[in-house]
Amino acid sequence: MEDLKGYLAQNKDRYLNELKDLLSIPSVSTSAEHEGDVRRAANWVHDQFVSMGLEAHIHETERHPVVYAQWLDAGPDAPTVLVYGHYDVQPPDPLDLWETGPFEPTVRDGKIFARGATDDKGQFFAHLKAAEAHMKVRGKLPVNLKFLIEGEEEIGSPNLAPYIKAHKDQLAADVVVISDTSMFAEGVPAIVYGLRGLTYFEITVEGPDHDLHSGLYGGAVANPINSLCQIIAGLKDENGKITIPGFYDEVRELTDAEREAWKKLPFDEEGFQSSIGAEALVGEEGFTTLERRWGRPTLDCNGIIGGFTGQGAKTVLPSKATAKFSCRLVPDQEPEVITARIEAHLKASVPEGTRLTVTPMHGGQPVIVNTDSPAVQAARQALSDAFGAEAVFIRGGGSIPVVADFSNILGVPTVLMGFGLPDDRLHSPNEKYNLTSFYGGIKAATLFLDHVANK
Amino acid sequence: MEDLKGYLAQNKDRYLNELKDLLSIPSVSTSAEHEGDVRRAANWVHDQFVSMGLEAHIHETERHPVVYAQWLDAGPDAPTVLVYGHYDVQPPDPLDLWETGPFEPTVRDGKIFARGATDDKGQFFAHLKAAEAHMKVRGKLPVNLKFLIEGEEEIGSPNLAPYIKAHKDQLAADVVVISDTSMFAEGVPAIVYGLRGLTYFEITVEGPDHDLHSGLYGGAVANPINSLCQIIAGLKDENGKITIPGFYDEVRELTDAEREAWKKLPFDEEGFQSSIGAEALVGEEGFTTLERRWGRPTLDCNGIIGGFTGQGAKTVLPSKATAKFSCRLVPDQEPEVITARIEAHLKASVPEGTRLTVTPMHGGQPVIVNTDSPAVQAARQALSDAFGAEAVFIRGGGSIPVVADFSNILGVPTVLMGFGLPDDRLHSPNEKYNLTSFYGGIKAATLFLDHVANK
Repeated sequence: MEDLKGYLAQNKDRYLNELKDLLSIPSVSTSAEHEGDVRRAANWVHDQFVSMGLEAHIHETERHPVVYAQWLDAGPDAPTVLVYGHYDVQPPDPLDLWETGPFEPTVRDGKIFARGATDDKGQFFAHLKAAEAHMKVRGKLPVNLKFLIEGEEEIGSPNLAPYIKAHKDQLAADVVVISDTSMFAEGVPAIVYGLRGLTYFEITVEGPDHDLHSGLYGGAVANPINSLCQIIAGLKDENGKITIPGFYDEVRELTDAEREAWKKLPFDEEGFQSSIGAEALVGEEGFTTLERRWGRPTLDCNGIIGGFTGQGAKTVLPSKATAKFSCRLVPDQEPEVITARIEAHLKASVPEGTRLTVTPMHGGQPVIVNTDSPAVQAARQALSDAFGAEAVFIRGGGSIPVVADFSNILGVPTVLMGFGLPDDRLHSPNEKYNLTSFYGGIKAATLFLDHVANK
Repeated sequence: MEDLKGYLAQNKDRYLNELKDLLSIPSVSTSAEHEGDVRRAANWVHDQFVSMGLEAHIHETERHPVVYAQWLDAGPDAPTVLVYGHYDVQPPDPLDLWETGPFEPTVRDGKIFARGATDDKGQFFAHLKAAEAHMKVRGKLPVNLKFLIEGEEEIGSPNLAPYIKAHKDQLAADVVVISDTSMFAEGVPAIVYGLRGLTYFEITVEGPDHDLHSGLYGGAVANPINSLCQIIAGLKDENGKITIPGFYDEVRELTDAEREAWKKLPFDEEGFQSSIGAEALVGEEGFTTLERRWGRPTLDCNGIIGGFTGQGAKTVLPSKATAKFSCRLVPDQEPEVITARIEAHLKASVPEGTRLTVTPMHGGQPVIVNTDSPAVQAARQALSDAFGAEAVFIRGGGSIPVVADFSNILGVPTVLMGFGLPDDRLHSPNEKYNLTSFYGGIKAATLFLDHVANK
């Protein structure tokens, strides 16, 4: 593979300039005012595919287009790889906290700063350059390769599942590769083999049908805020266990091998704690911080509001209070099943004198990937080679819903081979992407194609 | 007293027209734009005193003036009565809910609708007309009479206590009379002999020093909303008892006589419940609804906010959450003592991984008045005669801080002799004052002066 490595080394400056071009396009998918920019980014990606010799299309959806590209000349015996990525980005606000403009990509201290640098432009770009390198150096790819790069990931991919369903045959593949996650730490490349799912709720507790004076009525009427707090407080016991009946029934326990492997990871617990500025790390008894984040379900209140919340004091006894909360789920918890159990439990725990409304909002399935598959092994080999350090297997605490879509609709497993770092500040001001990640990512993606072809 | 009664009967139309004049002045004390109107109302009240032959002054304060008037020619053996009232009103918002303009006083179904009709213009007006009637009919008053009518009650009377302190000698009296409360029900006049006190707090729970992604961090970090809910839920037990150590130590228990008397009141529990639209009436075990509202301390959350409270879902693990709450206090709870106990308890119950800040905001002392005093007996007699039904002794759940000021600064007890009704919608749209209250109030105030002179 020295031919490829040499080519990559010679083109480093060009790669960086191209990434800067892409990062300069403010493809903010949620903003109507950036609709033209989103399309410009789609065109930019499309033109990249065309210039490297792939067949490429811009597919319209109800909002932002999907860029699809393919090269299928590796023959029927070669595996087919589908690369997923997204060219849209989060809004850059708050603008005043950026040291340099969010769409004026700037390199400082070996990092490129811009909105989308790590999420996901800098990452999916690696796979473009991998395909290009193979085409330029060898005139062909070692696998059949497909690209699906969408423009709506940051607004919840509303048109992606319909697109996948409508293009099942075209998207057929042996494996999906996504680079939209982080390495475990600088110099420690990682494959994410599990993701948590989600169920998100809103609950409203109502008492009197209008706000009351707390002096004239206080003491004789149930207070919806107090009731809501009582309900929420009752959802966990003193050991951090969730008390909803049946909540843990389908939880796949961590294996001894996993727990051992995670204990060996170079996890800096103190550094983690100080990075979030918390007094202590607190969670379910009997589990480590990594186990709590990756392998255990959670229940967190994400928002609460009720009564008078302005400056000063108002002695109101409010008529209602609302909270949003979510549970992160782990294999093999099914969002619908857990949602139903939570709803039943909540409805059974309404304090006297109040009414409760539960509104399930959305959910997502947890994911776990077989780490023994040839594609995962190929990714591990490529990452280890590209970053000069053994890639580790980790899980992620968040959700990437498209992984479940690929599994459920296409029946294809996903390899999560991310090049970012935990401090990349995605969705925040001063998002960055280390150049070691950038070049390492291109190298890993390039080598991966050879490794997966040889499995 | 037939002379007085005859005079009152002859002047009913004039009284109503005069009240309409006063109610037409939008003396909203909180609004800078109404500053001129507030002064107009002060002048109106001042001119009333002058025209009936009292010595009257407008005393400037840092904001809205106090109107003071006196007539001290009843001699040293006659008692001295100080009447307190307020000529300022609450803002009328929301305007669109008023059936007729808040400052266009309108009579419908035997009620006069306007902002301030019952709170407090229509009520203190009764005492003006009482003095006027005595002066016009008899050329003198049976007591030495002083009036203190302020313009800042609806903004918390910031300049009243300083004013009372600065005018201690001038305000010296045997009894203070205030008409700013309600009768027990239509046709059931009442003297309020007890008021609850208050202590108001804000608490903030902080966890991580910035908002976190609930997927990446959830399960490993204490969530400030969950912690806040846990703290609030822990402040009461399953019987509605407040769990703060020492909270009930100084609570003066209701006497058997009080409980018996309250049980005999024509309290319509079902009507009360349906008027507030609650599923059930809920409170401290072992007490009736009236006992809970009048004679027992409370703890109510008045507001709560934290995390994402907009439309839709955001999977945030917030860095902080805030709640406001207040306790209504009963004799002999001291706000400062209770405040200190609450603060100590809260600080001892902070869940691991979070920090707590407690900000005491304001407080007020509970009040209880000796119902055997001559002035209270005179008020009872006057009310019973004026409304044709025996006046009852009740307590109020709210606070009237000026009552404690008169007691603490002047050493003078207060008689709360209110003519309003529980459905007067004070502070709300369509505030009203029944004409039976209006004329009955003038009559009661007029008779009261004779009764108290004869005690």
